[in-house]
Amino acid sequence: MTFRLVVEILPKDGMLDPQGEAVAASLAGLGFDEVSAVRVGRLVSLTVEADSADHAVRRGEEMAGALLANPVMETYRVEVEVR
Amino acid sequence: MTFRLVVEILPKDGMLDPQGEAVAASLAGLGFDEVSAVRVGRLVSLTVEADSADHAVRRGEEMAGALLANPVMETYRVEVEVR
Repeated sequence: MTFRLVVEILPKDGMLDPQGEAVAASLAGLGFDEVSAVRVGRLVSLTVEADSADHAVRRGEEMAGALLANPVMETYRVEVEVR
Repeated sequence: MTFRLVVEILPKDGMLDPQGEAVAASLAGLGFDEVSAVRVGRLVSLTVEADSADHAVRRGEEMAGALLANPVMETYRVEVEVR
């Protein structure tokens, strides 16, 4: 079966995130002053052949740990996408 | 009330995505040969003060259209995060 996976990658809470700080400052400058705690990460969308949704997610987690994310600095979460 | 929003930004389907192609090739090289259609985008996580979840999402969509995404080349989706 074919599954669409989404891997969400964000800097860990303790890590500096200058890109997030820049976005927060720009948003405030545009008048969005209700915003705080901006973090900028990456999103990887992929199509996977797998026997089951569980298997697809497990493979997605292996991919995230091996290549997509840096587990020292980033957290990741893999989800089967339902659009 | 405080809401945590996630803005998912991906290149539009017709757009070239060299980063996605590079990731697809690297995954195949690592033995993940069940993967296809890799797209790499951005993820922005933010905390917003708003009267309701609907209002928070609406403000998130305004932020995405004004700053976070490039609506010509990218699609975006705003969600209230429930972890």
